[in-house]
Amino acid sequence: MTTPVCLVIGAGAGIGGTVGQRFAKEGYHSVLCRRSDQEGLDRLVGSIHEAGGAATGFLLNAVEENAIEDRVAAVEGEIGPIEVAVYNLGAQIGDRPLADTSYKAFELGWRMATFGLFRLASSLFPRMEERGHGSLLVTSATAAVRGNAGQHSHAAAMGGRRMLCQSLNAQFGPKGIHVAHILVDGAVDAPDTLGKMLGPEQFQALRETRGMEHDGLMLPERIADTYLHLANQHRSTWTHEIDLRSFTDRPWWNH
Amino acid sequence: MTTPVCLVIGAGAGIGGTVGQRFAKEGYHSVLCRRSDQEGLDRLVGSIHEAGGAATGFLLNAVEENAIEDRVAAVEGEIGPIEVAVYNLGAQIGDRPLADTSYKAFELGWRMATFGLFRLASSLFPRMEERGHGSLLVTSATAAVRGNAGQHSHAAAMGGRRMLCQSLNAQFGPKGIHVAHILVDGAVDAPDTLGKMLGPEQFQALRETRGMEHDGLMLPERIADTYLHLANQHRSTWTHEIDLRSFTDRPWWNH
Amino acid sequence: MTTPVCLVIGAGAGIGGTVGQRFAKEGYHSVLCRRSDQEGLDRLVGSIHEAGGAATGFLLNAVEENAIEDRVAAVEGEIGPIEVAVYNLGAQIGDRPLADTSYKAFELGWRMATFGLFRLASSLFPRMEERGHGSLLVTSATAAVRGNAGQHSHAAAMGGRRMLCQSLNAQFGPKGIHVAHILVDGAVDAPDTLGKMLGPEQFQALRETRGMEHDGLMLPERIADTYLHLANQHRSTWTHEIDLRSFTDRPWWNH
Amino acid sequence: MTTPVCLVIGAGAGIGGTVGQRFAKEGYHSVLCRRSDQEGLDRLVGSIHEAGGAATGFLLNAVEENAIEDRVAAVEGEIGPIEVAVYNLGAQIGDRPLADTSYKAFELGWRMATFGLFRLASSLFPRMEERGHGSLLVTSATAAVRGNAGQHSHAAAMGGRRMLCQSLNAQFGPKGIHVAHILVDGAVDAPDTLGKMLGPEQFQALRETRGMEHDGLMLPERIADTYLHLANQHRSTWTHEIDLRSFTDRPWWNH
Repeated sequence: MTTPVCLVIGAGAGIGGTVGQRFAKEGYHSVLCRRSDQEGLDRLVGSIHEAGGAATGFLLNAVEENAIEDRVAAVEGEIGPIEVAVYNLGAQIGDRPLADTSYKAFELGWRMATFGLFRLASSLFPRMEERGHGSLLVTSATAAVRGNAGQHSHAAAMGGRRMLCQSLNAQFGPKGIHVAHILVDGAVDAPDTLGKMLGPEQFQALRETRGMEHDGLMLPERIADTYLHLANQHRSTWTHEIDLRSFTDRPWWNH
Repeated sequence: MTTPVCLVIGAGAGIGGTVGQRFAKEGYHSVLCRRSDQEGLDRLVGSIHEAGGAATGFLLNAVEENAIEDRVAAVEGEIGPIEVAVYNLGAQIGDRPLADTSYKAFELGWRMATFGLFRLASSLFPRMEERGHGSLLVTSATAAVRGNAGQHSHAAAMGGRRMLCQSLNAQFGPKGIHVAHILVDGAVDAPDTLGKMLGPEQFQALRETRGMEHDGLMLPERIADTYLHLANQHRSTWTHEIDLRSFTDRPWWNH
Repeated sequence: MTTPVCLVIGAGAGIGGTVGQRFAKEGYHSVLCRRSDQEGLDRLVGSIHEAGGAATGFLLNAVEENAIEDRVAAVEGEIGPIEVAVYNLGAQIGDRPLADTSYKAFELGWRMATFGLFRLASSLFPRMEERGHGSLLVTSATAAVRGNAGQHSHAAAMGGRRMLCQSLNAQFGPKGIHVAHILVDGAVDAPDTLGKMLGPEQFQALRETRGMEHDGLMLPERIADTYLHLANQHRSTWTHEIDLRSFTDRPWWNH
Repeated sequence: MTTPVCLVIGAGAGIGGTVGQRFAKEGYHSVLCRRSDQEGLDRLVGSIHEAGGAATGFLLNAVEENAIEDRVAAVEGEIGPIEVAVYNLGAQIGDRPLADTSYKAFELGWRMATFGLFRLASSLFPRMEERGHGSLLVTSATAAVRGNAGQHSHAAAMGGRRMLCQSLNAQFGPKGIHVAHILVDGAVDAPDTLGKMLGPEQFQALRETRGMEHDGLMLPERIADTYLHLANQHRSTWTHEIDLRSFTDRPWWNH
């Protein structure tokens, strides 16, 4: 039997890479794509191999013409059928007033957060539809449900992403393709930055105490639990919209 | 060590009873409460015992004064700490135009769907807060997010339920109590009715074919997967609002 | 021709009374109901008479059995057909943690914010339906769309109110009855309290400067502009949900 | 004193042109921009002149580089300060499954519905901010709040538009700039097409009977009432989100 593939677009050291590791542990061949940092990518792929899992990594600039489409085709042809796709590209450019939000930045936000997802679905869904099953897990942000000062680019891009997810689901849900819009409504623990500075033990200690007790950083490993659960949901009982936040974080709708 | 208790208010043969069975399988002592049908309740408790799990059943009329409060106190005193509570009382009374919706029916809807939840939280949350952890899983309905003709009572009651969940979460999330509002947006497979008519084999066959292929009835066993996942979410990564529907069902926001 | 009646439930010196004055100015007979303060009520009715308008005032405890129903019947029998009803009863009881929110307070919130509206619609809509037209303008609050710590009672009651409005509209819109849910998302200028302390001139000066420039208190006269506009909307172009806030206020969905 | 300008981007014979006529009647100089049909544009401008109003028309392809920016600058320099801007460009391309939604169509939808609005705000808001006042009325569609099968391009573009409106409002509301997102949730009466076929009298008769009694077409003149009301709202009482539909139309949230 062919190993099912989990394709991650945006596989850095946060949610994307961790989800890739988790699916590999469950028997998927994880195909990890990120824009830069070959070394980090190799380390991620290596960590999966060491754990006995299957993984392949590619540098991929998602906004480049045909980059997503060609990768989908190559993975399907050379590695196996993509059973789960994780679209994990963010488009947060920090708080920028309108005057500091260039046309180029606004367009790039759309290319990464909205158009890239459309391109992924356009190239992948015909294959999934033919097979009669498949999942698309879309990492999303609070900006998908509310605008904010300084979020002109991010909110427009993420709002488009959410509505696109609803449209994709409307057409493809009945064909057996599960589209889940996952609203990550809080700060995610980032081992690549803070973790490297402190070293693994001290970093873990910090996360267990300050992180979990006080700051409530969202742990990517635990986020991956939910991604896996969503991919495993029976088709009689699918989730399309879900939110995630730390117990210490105020949901976006609260003051 | 004390066995953690999963208290289910509204433990019929659909979501409530099945969730109770599932948590018992995971090592919880399931305390199952339903308004009537002692025989059905005994059968449910018996099925858990046969599977090697712990369960106790009580008939409970949730709208009766002190019924919920006394049950919470008795369970905590005699069985163990309630780690997970599942509030699964519906208030659907069918499509009724305004003229056919009596004041009594409207008030009863509120007593079951909104006030009962408030009473459960009022009696249970101080205990959970002292312990620093606990989960409240609230089954909800599409009517919580949109009204409809004939749904005057149901929608008002469920809309109140959802806003109450958000308020409870705002106060108690940071105390370690996880409140999840689970929007069940579709028809649930009901073994107690259809299942009894057909017998187990024929019913299962129906569910595997017509149900899953065409009608897309939501299977309570699979719904229970998600309830369990929510209860197990790490507190750095909690879901507060989630929807569930069959792949063949149109989400409520679509035409 | 009969003078059309504008019935205001909750006609204090803020939105309710001001809306009553405004509709009287437009030729309606304003029937103003409030729970207490006969003197304030007389002053309000008197101000309308002085301006050449028609108005009648009644003390009315909306949570009393039959109080709303009897008033509707009496007004329709003795004054004229209710063309516009304004439901302006709030249920804000201040920030109260769960432990300080009594069952009685929670129920009272529902009786005022949700059940009272249901009773008004039950007694009024059959008459409007027979006439083929009518408007129900419902003052609502931010709590109708998001819960918050300390808002257990208010949010549950207002969430129910909003879903009830959607249900009423679904049944009665096609019958020519316009239901508008007006989300007042900010602090309203309160002449009855602050105004009395300062005297009219100083109070107006305050509102023109500090109020409008800085604090952005919502002016009831301007809120009444929008209520009137909604009542006048042509039935080919009705608004069902609208929000209102000061330019200096952050909408509820923002941080 | 300078005549205030009302700039309409998307001034066809439906909402845009009618809103332009209405604002001209109220004393604004209406600047009407549409992509094509010089004759229709001249007729619209002529009708305003005949009614004693001020208007100027321009053909403008909003997706062309600098088209919006240059028009804003020219109008401000040659006609007067833009007090009200109406962004009325749609991006509906009909129901198209994913396979029939080209990358070009998807991008064009974004350029018209999302990016064009961003460009308008970028060029206009610094001027309005300096003056301390101004309004941006944004025509929007149901697709801004829910996706649907065949609406991949439209929903993504309109979802982005709504979130952009919220972001713009968050930054510019406190500066005195009113951004209103107007969700037109129904079919609009289209005099340019149906009206031309039937002639004015027969068309009006149709609208009075079949249209208003049965089909409930939304009348642009009445929609313009609400646009005008929004532009006139006092800044202590602004609406940011409003919906509009015919009394016979089901709101989007209903079945």
